[in-house]
Parts: sequence; structure tokens; C-alpha cells
Amino acid sequence: MKIAVLPGDGIGPEIVAEAVKVLDALKLDLHLQSAPVGGAAYEASGHPLPPATLELAQASDAILFGAVGDWKYDTLERALRPEQAILGLRKALGLFANFRPAICYKELTHASSLKPELVSGLDILIIRELTGDIYFGQPRGRRSAPDGHFPGAEEAFDTMRYTRPEIERIGHVAFQAAQKRSKRVTSVDKANVLETFQLWKDVMTEVGKQYPDVQLDHMYVDNAAMQLVKEPKRFDVVVTGNMFGDILSDEASMLTGSIGMLPSASLNDKKQGLYEPSHGSAPDIAGKGVANPLATILSAAMMLRFSLGQEAAAQKIEAAVQKVLAQGLRTPDIYSEGTTKVGTQQMGDAVVAAL
Amino acid sequence: MKIAVLPGDGIGPEIVAEAVKVLDALKLDLHLQSAPVGGAAYEASGHPLPPATLELAQASDAILFGAVGDWKYDTLERALRPEQAILGLRKALGLFANFRPAICYKELTHASSLKPELVSGLDILIIRELTGDIYFGQPRGRRSAPDGHFPGAEEAFDTMRYTRPEIERIGHVAFQAAQKRSKRVTSVDKANVLETFQLWKDVMTEVGKQYPDVQLDHMYVDNAAMQLVKEPKRFDVVVTGNMFGDILSDEASMLTGSIGMLPSASLNDKKQGLYEPSHGSAPDIAGKGVANPLATILSAAMMLRFSLGQEAAAQKIEAAVQKVLAQGLRTPDIYSEGTTKVGTQQMGDAVVAAL
Ligand SMILES: CC(C)[C@H](C(=O)O)[C@@H](O)C(=O)O
Ligand SMILES: CC(C)[C@H](C(=O)O)[C@@H](O)C(=O)O
Repeated sequence: MKIAVLPGDGIGPEIVAEAVKVLDALKLDLHLQSAPVGGAAYEASGHPLPPATLELAQASDAILFGAVGDWKYDTLERALRPEQAILGLRKALGLFANFRPAICYKELTHASSLKPELVSGLDILIIRELTGDIYFGQPRGRRSAPDGHFPGAEEAFDTMRYTRPEIERIGHVAFQAAQKRSKRVTSVDKANVLETFQLWKDVMTEVGKQYPDVQLDHMYVDNAAMQLVKEPKRFDVVVTGNMFGDILSDEASMLTGSIGMLPSASLNDKKQGLYEPSHGSAPDIAGKGVANPLATILSAAMMLRFSLGQEAAAQKIEAAVQKVLAQGLRTPDIYSEGTTKVGTQQMGDAVVAAL
Repeated sequence: MKIAVLPGDGIGPEIVAEAVKVLDALKLDLHLQSAPVGGAAYEASGHPLPPATLELAQASDAILFGAVGDWKYDTLERALRPEQAILGLRKALGLFANFRPAICYKELTHASSLKPELVSGLDILIIRELTGDIYFGQPRGRRSAPDGHFPGAEEAFDTMRYTRPEIERIGHVAFQAAQKRSKRVTSVDKANVLETFQLWKDVMTEVGKQYPDVQLDHMYVDNAAMQLVKEPKRFDVVVTGNMFGDILSDEASMLTGSIGMLPSASLNDKKQGLYEPSHGSAPDIAGKGVANPLATILSAAMMLRFSLGQEAAAQKIEAAVQKVLAQGLRTPDIYSEGTTKVGTQQMGDAVVAAL
């Protein structure tokens, strides 16, 4: 089983190193190969997703990804900025199904902005479509406005698009995920305004008929943004498009108060996947040895489960993470009085010891 | 001064009646005229925004609007659904500047989902562009996909668009609002992915140079959705596009825990405005006399301030609302132990008495 290891920028290299340590400790037959991505790749070779990195990713069963980005690349032209590497990998590998769990760990409930009773035991799975919508829709660009309020003025535009089969396939992913959980799916749309999301709602309703054991409801995106704050535990599986999913999955992660704990997976139809922490590259704390490696370690567990068919090993990692939390070990981002503050490497070592 | 009174559906008529009572009590020279809108108008005449209602609105200095919508209209074709009335009014009157304050009242801090220290004293002003973006962009519709992942498949699409002058004018509104507050503006975009919001960011930066006393920062929409949960008080004036503003303004309202208290204003360049509560039509409690009229009463205050030049009267209403809260009067949505539960009319009467 081949794994492409793409550490990236900021804290990426540090946290990925700990996840690799954990994978090594499992003594599975894994072949890991690293390559630069993001700002690091731009520095090395002038492009955030160099051809060699893309080829390595394509030839692998899974990608273990750190994080990309740094303020210092903000002035580069868009095509050369670090985040283009993520968009490029999603597109080239067809990684259409993004799994973003928002879980509130018992030991970390107090870290949430929300009152403990609203988040204790929270366990939402947001499934975001990742290769369609306004992210990739053509045409897009700048032009002289052909009509509208200011015809002839300088205008920028993008196209939001979804086809029926794109909606169907992410719908099946969501309903099948719900069958393994509480059998409820909330599909988030804006069908009252957007043609794209009227089709989305229509198709989700149709796909839902093939899963009579799963209860489907529909919610407008503005209402979903509110209900996540008001009563997050009403949600179980949430499925939505690329743009709304970007916003809602980040909102939901932050509700837990411990985004440093949250993994993610992005899969294609061959179960090839990219696995990365939900948090970013945090350039402000890079190199200080204080970053939380647990989201990346848990992403490696998702990788073993979804792309490598190693359910037992995945559970082993997850149990080890639970154990280090129970032991009271905390990186600074999740530290609270009465617990033991540890650094990135110590946390990785503790997970290895707990395996 | 002419005011079009459009009560609409659900609790709309009840809450608007209380706001009208308060306006009457001020004995200003106002000419109020009512007309049906939304589902009520559809029932009466087959269209959610009948020509007579639109003409009345256009001929008025301001519109006092209740709320529209009910599940029972969900199966109507989109063009006949109640919310088309709002979209139609925004477009016909060019109401491009939407003011959505998210204020956490001292007496109601406990009602928030967030821990009290995160929201006490919260006072954010979200300024949402309201006549552009993907809400109105043409072309839109259904077709056979011309290219993409599934060429030839059934596809729905919408167009996101902004011209430079549209961004400039909402930018000036935001910077001028900030000059009267804490002199900070956060512009929310998704310039890392969307052409539309790269132009947005560029133009906001340019407009900002004309306001050297105001500090401008830029934030991606996904990060903004997180920071609102993590540290809402870091925000003062937030300016963003129509779609992101829809989501973030509702998220921010819900943070306060008392959306029944939050007014809104939508203005055009002639200071004509539509004033409505931030909450919806709540058909489940309609007709029961329990709806909170304060958001609508505070919307009437905004109307006096922004469209009718009656600052003193606006402040009188706001002071009266503060007073009834201090007296401990609460409708059920904001009730807590130790306060006095009152109905819609009693609350309206109390505000009149407090004037
Ligand atoms: C970096 C950016 C392009 C990306 C996105 O918007 O999808 C990120 O926010 C994410 O959610 O993975
Ligand atoms: C009813 C709907 C069309 C509307 C919108 O999306 O703008 C509403 O959500 C709002 O925010 O006023």
C-alpha cells in the first residue's frame, strides 16, 4: 500500500512527522514517500503542486497531507498560491466526497465557546461535495458587465453548477454514511434562491427514496448556520455543496472548541483519498514544537479505514488518542488547568506508547 | 412622510400591529398605508408581490415589513412563493445596503448558546450587499451540461457577479458606518477561490484608502464563520456580499440568543428603506399572541432614523425598549426565571407606556 506524504507549510511538517511515527509503530506493510506541496513546493520549484508531487499522489492509494499556506504568499498571483495545491489535488484525483466530523471530546467540552450542555457528546458528520459547485464552475473571470445595474463596468464573475449525477453520487455517500449512524440526513441548500440548489434538493429527495430507512430533511443554508449555534446536537449527517460545506464545516468544527482534534478525508470513487487535519497551517506557531498532532494522527486513522481497508489499525489509533486524552496530556491549544501540558513530539510519543 | 405597511404572513400581522401602535403614539406626521404581501397576497390575488403593493412601496419613503412564508407554500412554483416578494422589493427599489445589527442585550446574555463572557456587550453590525451576487446574476437555469465531469447530463447553474461600482457603493456605506462606531471594518470574501471576491477584495482595499481613519482587514468567509463562534467580540462592522451575508448575518444573530430582538434595514441610494425584523414568520406560533414584537418595533426606530430623519423619535423608541427590558417584561422567546412573561400586545403596550 502506497502512501504519498505531503507535509506542506507552517506546522504541516511537525504534525505529519508525528502521524508517520504512529503509522510506523503499527508495523503495517505501508510504503511512504514524501514530496513538497504548497508554499514549500513553490519555494523549491516555483509551483505549489509540482508535476512530480501530483504524479506521486496519483500513483498512491492515499495521501497524508499536512497543511498549506502562509501570509507571505498572499501577494503571489492566485495560480501560484499554496491553496491551489489542494484545489489541484481535489480536481486531478476527483476527490468529490469530503468527510468532516465535528466531534466534541468529553475531556474537552469546556473548551467550546458554547455552553457545555449544548455540545457535550456532539458528533456531527458533515459531508461536503468537493469537486463541483462554484469552486470549479466555468466560465469565470473578469469582463465588462454585459448587463445588470452597471452595464459596461468592470465585473468579475463565477459560475455555480451541479449536474444530476454529481448530486446523486454525493447523496449516496451521505445516505450510506447515515445508515451506519443514526439514520438521519440533513441536506442543506438554498433552493429558495438558487437554481443549482433547487436541483440539489430535487435530486436528494429522489436519492433518499432509495434509502427508506434513513430520514431526510432539508434546510436552508442560512438556517443551518443558525441551528448549528442554537442546537448543534439536532444534526447527525449533514450533506451539502462545496461552497456551503466550506462555511458550515468550519463553523461546526469551531463549535467543538477543539479544532486541533478534528481529522478529515476526501475520497474519490476508487476510494483513493486525501487525509488532512481540519485546521490550517498556523504559521505563527510553526517550528515551536507546540502544535497539536492529534487531528493529523486521527486523519491517518481515517486513511487506514477508508483507503487501506485496515479497520482494526484505525480503531487502535483512535483508542490510543482517547487514552492520551484520558491520561490528561494536552498540547497548548487544548490545555486547561489540572491537565499536563505537552509538546508536539511528546504527544506523538504518548500516542505510540498507548497503541 | 409616507410609510407602506406590509404585514405579510405568520406572526407578521401581530408584530407589525405593535410597531404601528408605537409609531402612532409618537404623534409624528406619518401617513401609513397597508397592503398584502407574501403568502397573504398570493391568497388574495395570486401573486406574492401584487402590482398595487409594489406601487405603494415605490411611492413611499419607507416600508415597514413583517415577515413572509409558510410551509404550505413550499410546493408552489418558485416565482409564486412568498419570499419572492422580498427579493422583488429589493430588486425593484434597488435596496442594496442591508444593515443587520447583532446586539446582545445585557438582560438577555444568558439566552445565548455561547458562554456569557464571549457575548456580553456584543455589538456587531453586519452590512450585507443585497442586490447583486448570485442572488440576481444572470444567466441561470437548467440545461444539458456543456462540459465538466458529466457533459450532457442535466445541470442547474447560477451566476455570481459583482461590478466595481456595486462593490464601491457598499464599501462606502460600511466605512461610513464604521466612522460612527469603532472605526474598524472586516471585509469578508473568498478571494482564494472566487474571481468575484478577488475583485471584491481589491475594490474594498481601494475604497478603504479614502478612509484613513478606519482600519480594514480581510477575512475568508469560512474563517469568519469560525471566528464568529470563537471570538465574536473581535468584530465591529462586517461587510460582505449577498450570499455570504445571508449566512453570516443569521449566524451572528443567533449568537446573541435573542433573535426576537434584532431589527434590520435595507436601503437604496435615495435613503428609501425596507425595515423588518431579522427573524422569520414563525407560522407555528402565529395568531397565539406570544410573538416578540420588539425586533419589529426596533425596525421602526431604524426607519425613523435612516429614512425619515427622525433621530430623536428613534432614540425614544430604543430607550423605551431598554426600559421594558429593565422592567423585566419578556415574551416567551426571551423569558427566564424571575422575569415577567407577557404577550405580544402587552409588550407593545408596555413600550408605548415607556415612551
Ligand atoms: C484553502 C481553500 C481553497 C479550502 C477551500 O475553500 O476548500 C479550505 O478552506 C478548505 O476548506 O479545505
Ligand atoms: C427569504 C430569503 C430569500 C432571504 C434571503 O436569502 O435573502 C432571507 O433569508 C433573508 O436573509 O432575508
